[in-house]
Formats: sequence, structure tokens, C-alpha cells
Amino acid sequence: MPINPNADIEITAFRWVPEFAQGVVRDLRARWALEEAGLDYRVRLLDQQRPPEYLKEQPFDQVPCFRDDSVQIFETGAIVQYIGDKSEALLPSDPQGKYRAIQWTYAALNSVEPALINLLLIDVFFTNEEWAKMRRPGAADFARLKLKRVSEWLDDKQWLEGDRFTIGDLIMITTLRFLRHTDMVAEFPNLAAFLQRGEARPAFQRALSDQLATFREHQPEGVAA
Amino acid sequence: MPINPNADIEITAFRWVPEFAQGVVRDLRARWALEEAGLDYRVRLLDQQRPPEYLKEQPFDQVPCFRDDSVQIFETGAIVQYIGDKSEALLPSDPQGKYRAIQWTYAALNSVEPALINLLLIDVFFTNEEWAKMRRPGAADFARLKLKRVSEWLDDKQWLEGDRFTIGDLIMITTLRFLRHTDMVAEFPNLAAFLQRGEARPAFQRALSDQLATFREHQPEGVAA
Repeated sequence: MPINPNADIEITAFRWVPEFAQGVVRDLRARWALEEAGLDYRVRLLDQQRPPEYLKEQPFDQVPCFRDDSVQIFETGAIVQYIGDKSEALLPSDPQGKYRAIQWTYAALNSVEPALINLLLIDVFFTNEEWAKMRRPGAADFARLKLKRVSEWLDDKQWLEGDRFTIGDLIMITTLRFLRHTDMVAEFPNLAAFLQRGEARPAFQRALSDQLATFREHQPEGVAA
Repeated sequence: MPINPNADIEITAFRWVPEFAQGVVRDLRARWALEEAGLDYRVRLLDQQRPPEYLKEQPFDQVPCFRDDSVQIFETGAIVQYIGDKSEALLPSDPQGKYRAIQWTYAALNSVEPALINLLLIDVFFTNEEWAKMRRPGAADFARLKLKRVSEWLDDKQWLEGDRFTIGDLIMITTLRFLRHTDMVAEFPNLAAFLQRGEARPAFQRALSDQLATFREHQPEGVAA
């Protein structure tokens, strides 16, 4: 089990989040990468109300941060890439293989995620706003276009670059999970199968289970689980 | 002059774009990085209507793509990082320096750019939509919060990690340029100075000038310059 209180690697995560965020908080990406690489880690838990000095570690007040004996960094793209640099299980070492994987990591975070998060915010945070009702069809179409682009690229490949799972797949799969409150991914059967293949990996299952166990342990009294 | 028709490195760019996009099309990032690194490159120009087979090179139908003797990749984050890997002028080689720079590249593209592009789209593409008028104040506040976070981190530093310019600064500065149609960056004097310092670099000036020269050369008849 990679969770080890004496590990050199530390990540930050939330003690508890509301149900809609459980299973998609971004420390899941770091946990999954660490599980794939077989690297032990410890978790520093934060309350939803972070102390003001946390901004010195994470200027955008998010989780996770990552530190080990060599680096102290934030941003899941960078963290997962750093873990990938330590493990051929996540990142090939030849230039083309390496940079194709890195390219998909950036693509998931910059070319796909913003459209998906935009729809998620409309559906979860702004659902009662008049503008959100007017905007939703267009926002859904734009998210669907992004899914279509990834689906067409993926075609009948197992992973984004063929037979080998990389950090690019890891970030894309966790990005697709931001639409789990909709049926949109299912409109693209090869994309739905890709998502299921990722979620079926034992390393993903351990990472998800560990994130959710923390939330169960710190469930506030009087809040429905 | 790094533009050289016989160079090994090739990037794609648009032959012409409307004025609001001139100077922010993303090949600017690749050009700037290549100028900083002193690497020759050639440009393959595309019409606004890309051929369908371009999706096999760039699944999201954007520019730039990048190729040299070793790799063929897309996504400006990955391209700029690849160029950085070839040049200490853009990316330190020690693990902490390297990954702090990579972290800022991801931060600009995932934690800052989506909020800024959201506002840009409201102001430029959706300006006459009723929902856009209702949404603008909240979208502007969210963009402003992102600027505040970066400004507070930057404090009185020259660049995001201190005295040394990296790919993280390059991507953050080109990201801030997406708000050039507003006065919002000027609300944060240290951020405005950071943007100016970046834009004053000779490599940036050459990159911008080369992008704009192409658009002037291919200005359609009957369209105001």
C-alpha cells in the first residue's frame, strides 16, 4: 500500500468535501500516478478553510501540493509528469514517446478540461442562475465537440498513443470524470470504453478508494453521506 | 533570424486571422521560445479553413503543431517545454528549478488561462448574447481573482521564480495578453510590470513581429487592416 506515514513523498488533500466533489478532487491524479509508479506517499490533510499561509505553497489555494527530497511543486500536470519522470510505467523515455505523452497531459488540461469544467459549474454551482439556463445548451455543445475530437483521435486505440498507458491517459481519464453527472461521455462508445479501462486499473481503484476513505472518516455530523 | 526555410524545425501557423486574434494566436508562444533558444525554424502556413486531414496532426484543429528530427507534437505547453529541454535559457536543469518552471507552465494554462479566455469569449464572440451580459460581471471577478493570485505570488520578484526567466514566465505572459482588450492587468501594477518586462525581451519582439508580418502579407482584399 503506497500510503505510508513515513514516506519521503508528501501530498496535500482535503479532509472532507461535499459529495459532488468526492472522487474528482485533484489529489486523485497524484495518488493514481503514485500507485502506478509504486511510490509510497503520505497525505497532509487540510480543512476546506485553508490557513492563509497555504497560499505560499499553492498560490491558487488548491490541492494537491507535492514534495519529496528534491522538489516542492503544485499543479497536477507538473506533479504527474514529475512522478512519470521516475517511472517507465507512466512516461516513455524516448523523445517522441515522452513528448507525445506530455502533449496529451497538456491537451487534457488546456484543450479539454476548461469546456468540461464550464459545464460542470453551470450544472452544479450556477444551476439556478438565469444566465446559466440560457448558456447551458451552447456550453454542452462545446463540451461535446471536445469529446468528439478526443473520440475521433482515439478511434480503436486502447490508449491515446496506442498500446501503452501514459500520464496523458491518466490526466485525460480524470478529466472525463468531470462529466460523470451527465451521460455525455456515453454518447461516444470508444471514449466510454477508454474511461472504463482507465477506471478499472487496480492503481486507480486504490487511489479512489483511499481518497473516499478519508472523506468517510471525516464526514461532518449532520451532513448526509 | 531564426526563420529559415531550410530549418529542421517546422511549426504551423495561420496565413491570416481577424484583427482581434492578431498577436495572440498561439504559435506566438512557440516562436518566442525558439527565439529565446536561438533555434532556427520554418513555418507551414494554413488557411483558416484547415484541410480535414489536419486533424490527424492536431486533433483539436488548432495551431501550432511542431516537428523536428526527433518528435512531432502539438499543444503549446508541450512544445515550449520541449524547446526548453534543449536550452538552459528557458528551463533550468536541476530538478527543483526545472519542475518549478514546468509547474508554472501548467498553472498558466490550467489555473489562469481558462478564466481569462472565458472573459475574452464573452467580450468578443458572445458580446450580443443576453446571457453574456448577465454573466460578464461574475466572469470578470473570477478572472480578476486569478490575476490577484498571480500578483500576490509575484510580489516584487522579477520573474515567477525569482531572477531567472523560464518557460513558466513565457506561457504566463502570453496568457495575460488574452486580457489586452481590458484594463484589468493594469489594476495590479507588479503584474503589469511583469507583462511589460516579458514583452520588452528582444526574442518576444522578433516573434511578435514575424507573426504580424505574415498576417500583413496575406491581408485579404477589402478587409480593413
